[in-house]
Amino acid sequence: MTKRQGRKARGVQETKRKVDYRTLRNPFPPLDAFPPDRIDAIHAAALDVLGRLGIKVLLPEARDLFESAGAQVIDEMVYFPADLIEGHVALAPKSIVIKGGVAERDITLELGSLVFQPGAGCPHATDLERGRRAGTLEDYLELTKLTHHFDALQMLPPLVEPQDVPMNLRHYETMRAQLTLSNKVPFVFSRGTPQVQQSFEMLKAFRNVTDTEFMQNPYCYTIINTNSPRQLDIPMAQGIIDFARAGQVSIITPFTLMGAMAPVTVAGALTLSHAEAMAAITLGQIANAGAPMTYGTFTSNVDMKTGAPAFGTPEQVKASLGAGQLARKLGLPWRCAAGSAANINDAQAAHETEISGWGAFLAGATVIIHSAGWLEGGLTLSYEKLITDMDMVQTFAELCVPPEADDDAIALSALAEVEPGGHFFGAIHTMERYQTAFYDPVGMDWSNIGTWEDRGSQDANTRATAIWKGILRDFVPPPIAVEKIAQLDAYIAQKTSEGGAPPES
Amino acid sequence: MTKRQGRKARGVQETKRKVDYRTLRNPFPPLDAFPPDRIDAIHAAALDVLGRLGIKVLLPEARDLFESAGAQVIDEMVYFPADLIEGHVALAPKSIVIKGGVAERDITLELGSLVFQPGAGCPHATDLERGRRAGTLEDYLELTKLTHHFDALQMLPPLVEPQDVPMNLRHYETMRAQLTLSNKVPFVFSRGTPQVQQSFEMLKAFRNVTDTEFMQNPYCYTIINTNSPRQLDIPMAQGIIDFARAGQVSIITPFTLMGAMAPVTVAGALTLSHAEAMAAITLGQIANAGAPMTYGTFTSNVDMKTGAPAFGTPEQVKASLGAGQLARKLGLPWRCAAGSAANINDAQAAHETEISGWGAFLAGATVIIHSAGWLEGGLTLSYEKLITDMDMVQTFAELCVPPEADDDAIALSALAEVEPGGHFFGAIHTMERYQTAFYDPVGMDWSNIGTWEDRGSQDANTRATAIWKGILRDFVPPPIAVEKIAQLDAYIAQKTSEGGAPPES
Repeated sequence: MTKRQGRKARGVQETKRKVDYRTLRNPFPPLDAFPPDRIDAIHAAALDVLGRLGIKVLLPEARDLFESAGAQVIDEMVYFPADLIEGHVALAPKSIVIKGGVAERDITLELGSLVFQPGAGCPHATDLERGRRAGTLEDYLELTKLTHHFDALQMLPPLVEPQDVPMNLRHYETMRAQLTLSNKVPFVFSRGTPQVQQSFEMLKAFRNVTDTEFMQNPYCYTIINTNSPRQLDIPMAQGIIDFARAGQVSIITPFTLMGAMAPVTVAGALTLSHAEAMAAITLGQIANAGAPMTYGTFTSNVDMKTGAPAFGTPEQVKASLGAGQLARKLGLPWRCAAGSAANINDAQAAHETEISGWGAFLAGATVIIHSAGWLEGGLTLSYEKLITDMDMVQTFAELCVPPEADDDAIALSALAEVEPGGHFFGAIHTMERYQTAFYDPVGMDWSNIGTWEDRGSQDANTRATAIWKGILRDFVPPPIAVEKIAQLDAYIAQKTSEGGAPPES
Repeated sequence: MTKRQGRKARGVQETKRKVDYRTLRNPFPPLDAFPPDRIDAIHAAALDVLGRLGIKVLLPEARDLFESAGAQVIDEMVYFPADLIEGHVALAPKSIVIKGGVAERDITLELGSLVFQPGAGCPHATDLERGRRAGTLEDYLELTKLTHHFDALQMLPPLVEPQDVPMNLRHYETMRAQLTLSNKVPFVFSRGTPQVQQSFEMLKAFRNVTDTEFMQNPYCYTIINTNSPRQLDIPMAQGIIDFARAGQVSIITPFTLMGAMAPVTVAGALTLSHAEAMAAITLGQIANAGAPMTYGTFTSNVDMKTGAPAFGTPEQVKASLGAGQLARKLGLPWRCAAGSAANINDAQAAHETEISGWGAFLAGATVIIHSAGWLEGGLTLSYEKLITDMDMVQTFAELCVPPEADDDAIALSALAEVEPGGHFFGAIHTMERYQTAFYDPVGMDWSNIGTWEDRGSQDANTRATAIWKGILRDFVPPPIAVEKIAQLDAYIAQKTSEGGAPPES
């Protein structure tokens, strides 16, 4: 009798481990980097920056909005009374539900909830077979499929730039890909009002959402990067206003590299980032009180010898922990990031991604961006790295479920069943649970070196290549009505014939 | 004027970042896996295991000691009253100072302190140039030098087995290497009383320590692995007794792989591990009340499809967190581990090491073993991995220092100095701090892809090869009196001529 027959004979059913990676809550208390009084000091300093030094705002409409709310505007500079900032930041909702294509793809953004995105916004893509190249629509489509495949990636990000699609038509292709290949929450670039409005139109029509429903519930999101230090450019300010007025989500993300666009200290960089984030949230709340917006930070450091950006550093971890404290001070969901400066998916890339990933996880981040596939500080998205990083992402998801702790888990019966020096492979307690007891990894190979050599001594990247190719080969998009796609295509054809939409307002 | 001249002209001194990686304290509150009442339940279940199921003890002297203290002995089985266990575990010191060769190499083991060891006990060594091979004395010497080089590795472990040295002479070579190449705390294998006693003799003579001083202060340590489940073999039991009587440190480490040598559940494996650890500590305390011993665990899971050990799994993280709770219940310093099942130092190896490393760090472990270089679940120590993992170890060390939080760190002056959209590279605040602001990595390469390609597109392992070769090339042992080495060599020559010492009692 084989082992398997033995299991069957005992009436043990072959079952698959069931895991819910779609709705995660971080079970751990967030770790702090600063004493509470110093968080208060950073917050006060950020208000001082906003009041005394001001923010340069390049969009006239944004300056007008700020002025109408009581800010002082001198040329392009805007100076904010503290109560204007604090009063408006307090209007941002503390919990945001973004609707997916089906209910089980809805995500909740609030302190304590946890969602992941793979690498975003990369100009290049790379894989072992095709090498590093400028991102194409094919890459965008494939990476959207890979993102859809993994439940633990709950949002679709702007993975790579499809540089072979003209800028005035690009938003059609990226929205079409997101809607037809996935039912997860899609991303819309803030590249001017015309593209944003058309993206909203495509999304509403495809998801059968009325204007009122759209206004009441977010169905998509954008990322807003301030131009640190102390500057808000035209497309970003316009994006904040457009998304706020449409009731859609802005994830605010000052990108503050310590020593370059921000002070060389963690506390200084966070002061700047906090000031910029609060100014951006204030703009959205002036445009539409109660508009869904998240707090966010992306603070790491540069190599002071060369000025090169670095990720996965201890300073980035400390900045993430401090940013979490500031987010909790405001009570807002917030965005943090993993990242790597490595040029290929080697041990460095994995170490940096893990260090920054743990920093974001332990900081209690709501959205962890760039958590899989991001190389070269964001210049390239790696297919293989997307696969190998998923074991980190899914480990975080697994850690959201505490271990079983009842008397049956303590297993006195099993301990009594096995003799000293024996083993538990055949114990009843084991047989009842062995199929579902442990995490089943994506890319880890646990075979011993003999077996591993017999199978061709494949490193993690070689195995990952077979894995992503298999996912793409077997990919089945979520069920979507054919007429919806036809409708979308007709819209895109019509708008294309009219010249598309410029990537600016 | 170049940038450097500019710095000099401003009177900024070229200074090096100073970091103290020798005396670390973990600043974060440990994370819990179980509610407190379930930790009590695991502790109670472990006492039940010890009382009702018993432990098989192969060494007659150990059974006699247990019996003399009130345990019931039937054949080789020992059954423990709960108060015998709890009473003796309470005798173990809660803080242990192990003396190094100089005062700044002393280490403190207590809850809250943090020390690291590289990979230990590997039969094989590997590096890119010489490939994977059975460990040799040359490997042992080289790896001892690499361990000595890094301050963040505060203890010397049994790195690889020098298999080219006969077992009856091996302890001479390993002790000689540890004493002459380093002044860090050395390891002594528990391979029978004769080898242990000779190792103590070598150590005392070399460090000028009297018998009384040696008895009062530990100067070395051993690792005690129980033979899970519920078994204590002869060399391990003898080691506990020998080390306890000599006042030297035993680090107790049940090795309980869930599903194999332990129940398939985290709670069940911890129950077994906790029972075995308490029994082992009890033996040492019976032999010598107050003897320095640490708690410990090494609990991960196997791949239930193949039985292969796995490391860096979510289950290992949960087990580490739970073990920390049990250690804190006893109040004892404790040993945990990082680890990887990968066969080469690729992304898998780094991910697994990071996941298990963070698990141990967040669990509040006192000693984190196998934190650098450990491959194949401990079958091989990799020179390159020892280097690349050091950036993880040193990151943990860096995280022990909170970020500066005073007003000067908040940097309002710098924020005022830099215009919107400008940069902080030349700010006075940056110039004053740029040389010491950030962690300086061991093996990370942050250059952009063009520079990286110009330098030969070296992956992390290729760079690590140059790094470890450079460390060995430039290695200078700590200052040690020549006559001490001559004395030691004379001792070894004499003992060798007498046939060495058998690796058993």
